[in-house]
Amino acid sequence: MQCKKTCSIALSCLYVVGFLISCKVLLYEEKGETKEEKRAEEMFLRTHPVNETDLPLIFVGGMPRSGTTLMRTMLEAHQDIRCGPETHVLPWLLNQVHEWRRHEDKTHRLAEAGVEPNALDIAVSKFMLEIIKFHAAPALFYCNKDPLLLLDMIYLKKIFPNSKFIYMVRDGRASAHSIVSRTVTIVGVNVKSYRSVLEYWNRISQRMHRCCHELGEDSCLPVYYEQLVLQPVKTTKRIFEFLDIDWCTDVLHHEKHLNSTLSKFERSTDQVQKPLYLDALTSWFGKIPRDVEKDMPKIAPMLKTFGYDPSNPRPTYGEPDDFVLGKVHY
Amino acid sequence: MQCKKTCSIALSCLYVVGFLISCKVLLYEEKGETKEEKRAEEMFLRTHPVNETDLPLIFVGGMPRSGTTLMRTMLEAHQDIRCGPETHVLPWLLNQVHEWRRHEDKTHRLAEAGVEPNALDIAVSKFMLEIIKFHAAPALFYCNKDPLLLLDMIYLKKIFPNSKFIYMVRDGRASAHSIVSRTVTIVGVNVKSYRSVLEYWNRISQRMHRCCHELGEDSCLPVYYEQLVLQPVKTTKRIFEFLDIDWCTDVLHHEKHLNSTLSKFERSTDQVQKPLYLDALTSWFGKIPRDVEKDMPKIAPMLKTFGYDPSNPRPTYGEPDDFVLGKVHY
Repeated sequence: MQCKKTCSIALSCLYVVGFLISCKVLLYEEKGETKEEKRAEEMFLRTHPVNETDLPLIFVGGMPRSGTTLMRTMLEAHQDIRCGPETHVLPWLLNQVHEWRRHEDKTHRLAEAGVEPNALDIAVSKFMLEIIKFHAAPALFYCNKDPLLLLDMIYLKKIFPNSKFIYMVRDGRASAHSIVSRTVTIVGVNVKSYRSVLEYWNRISQRMHRCCHELGEDSCLPVYYEQLVLQPVKTTKRIFEFLDIDWCTDVLHHEKHLNSTLSKFERSTDQVQKPLYLDALTSWFGKIPRDVEKDMPKIAPMLKTFGYDPSNPRPTYGEPDDFVLGKVHY
Repeated sequence: MQCKKTCSIALSCLYVVGFLISCKVLLYEEKGETKEEKRAEEMFLRTHPVNETDLPLIFVGGMPRSGTTLMRTMLEAHQDIRCGPETHVLPWLLNQVHEWRRHEDKTHRLAEAGVEPNALDIAVSKFMLEIIKFHAAPALFYCNKDPLLLLDMIYLKKIFPNSKFIYMVRDGRASAHSIVSRTVTIVGVNVKSYRSVLEYWNRISQRMHRCCHELGEDSCLPVYYEQLVLQPVKTTKRIFEFLDIDWCTDVLHHEKHLNSTLSKFERSTDQVQKPLYLDALTSWFGKIPRDVEKDMPKIAPMLKTFGYDPSNPRPTYGEPDDFVLGKVHY
C-alpha cells in the first residue's frame, strides 16, 4: 500500500513538472513571436548557414572612380557589415579561373584530370571565403569591394547563391576626369587620354549593366553615385532594403566610423574621410577636350542608357536632400 | 513487501547488466591492444585529423619523363592510396602565388589589404585540398602527381605539415632522350635540343635536390627510377616504410590495378600499362649528339651529384632482382 501511495505521489509530481515545462515552452514560444525576436532569429539563420557558400555576401563594384569606396565606407558605418580594403588577390584569382576555362575549352585537360568545373568552383569559393572572411575583422555580413570583380557577377552569383551586388553607376565623364587628373593606373588603358578612358568606361559599363540586368533586381542593385551624394537618406534606405538589413543613421555619418582597414593605397581614401561633398559632381565641367566632347554620343553611348545626356556638357543631377543641406540632423 | 522484493530483483538485474557491460568493455580493450588494432587506430587518427591541412598528403614529382607516372600507378595499386591524374590547376595556382609574393615584396599592397601571408596560405591550402580530394575517388591517403609541383616542396611542407615528398631521380640523359624523341612540351624549353633539355634538367634537379635535402629524410625521399625498375621489391618496401604505410604485393602488379583515372593525355600512359620493363633504361644509348656528350660534365653537373657518370655514354644501372627476372612470384 505504501509503495502504491509513493508511486502515485511520484506520478503527480511528474505531471506538475510536465505542466511547468509545457508552460515554459508556451511562454518561450510566445516571447519568440515578437517581431524583434523573429527578425533576430531570421538574421542568425541567414548569417550562419550550414554551407558557407550560402553566406549573404555583399559585393560592391563598378568602374574605378565611381564612388565604390564611398559606398563601402557607408556600409561599414553599419555595425553588422564589414568590407575591408580591396584584396587585389580575388580579381587575380578570377582572371586565372577565366584563363583555365579558356584553356579548358581548347584542351579538355582539366576534365580529363577529373577537375570538373564544379570542383574548380568549390575550390575557388573556399579560397575566396578564406580571404573575404579573414582579411579583416569578423562581422555578421561580409562585403567585398574589389571594384572590377563585378565583371564576374554572374559567376560569383553561381558560386555564392545568396550574394548581392551593389553596382555603382556614375557619369562616365566625371569618372574619366577623376582618372585622367589623378593618373589612376588601369592595366591596358591609356589613362592620359580622355577618349581611351571613356571608351573603357563604356565597355565596362556595357558588360556590368547587362550582367546586373541578367541577375535581376533581387540580386543586383545599380546605385547612382550622384543620388548617393545628393539624396543619401532615400538612397541608403533603398540599399538597405535591397540588402534586407535594418537601416540605421550611422550610415549617414560614415566619416565618423572610418576604421583602420581603409588602405592608404586606395586613391579614394583622402575623399571619404570628409563628409559627403558635392564638388566632385561638377569638377569635370569644362575639362573634357572639345573633340572628345563632340564625339561623346559615339564614344560613350552607355551615358544615354543610364539617363545622362551626352550632349549636355553641364548637366544637373538633382537637388540635395535636407540632410545634405544641413536642415535635418540624424 | 512485494514492492521491496520487486525493487531488489530489479537492482540485481541492473548489477548483472552492469557486470556484462564492463566485461564487454574489458574484452574490447584487450582486443584493442592487439598490434593490428593499434595500427588501425593510429592509421585512422593520421588520416582523419581535426585540421584538414594536417592530412598526410603524398606529393610525387621530379623532372618530366623521370618515372613519376610509374611511381604514381605503383602507389595507386595499393588499396589505401589514390593520386588521380595530373590536376594542371595546382601548378598554375602556385605560380600565381609566387607572382603575388613577388608583387607583394614590391608593393606591400596585400598586407595593406589585410591579406597577411598566413591568410593567403590558408586560402591556397583550402583550394588545393578541394582539388586533391575531389578530383578522383575518396581514399585514406591522398596523393598528388603534378611533377613540377616539387619545385615548391618547401612551401607545400609549410602549408601541409604532415605531407611527404617522393622525388623521382633519373639519369638526365634518358629523360632528355625521352623528351626530345616524343617532343614533350615544356614551357620555355626548346625540346628539340638535347643541350637545352639537359640544361633545364640540371636547373630543375639542382633546385629539387637542394629542397629535398633541406626538408630532410623524414619528409622527402629521392627515388631512383633505375632502382625502381630493376629492384622494385626492395625499392617499394623502402618507399612504403618512408610513407609509414603497410607495403603489399599489389604495388608490384601495378599494371593489373590501373583504373580509369589514368589520363589519356598523360604521355607516359602507354608505358605504364605494361609490366615493369627495362628497355627504357638504355634506349638513349648512342642518341645524344657528340658535341653535347662531350660537354656533358659542364652541361649537367648534377649527373655526378646523383652518382651517374657523365663521361660514360653506356652506363650500367645495376642488376634486376629475382622478381623482375621472373624467378620469384608475389
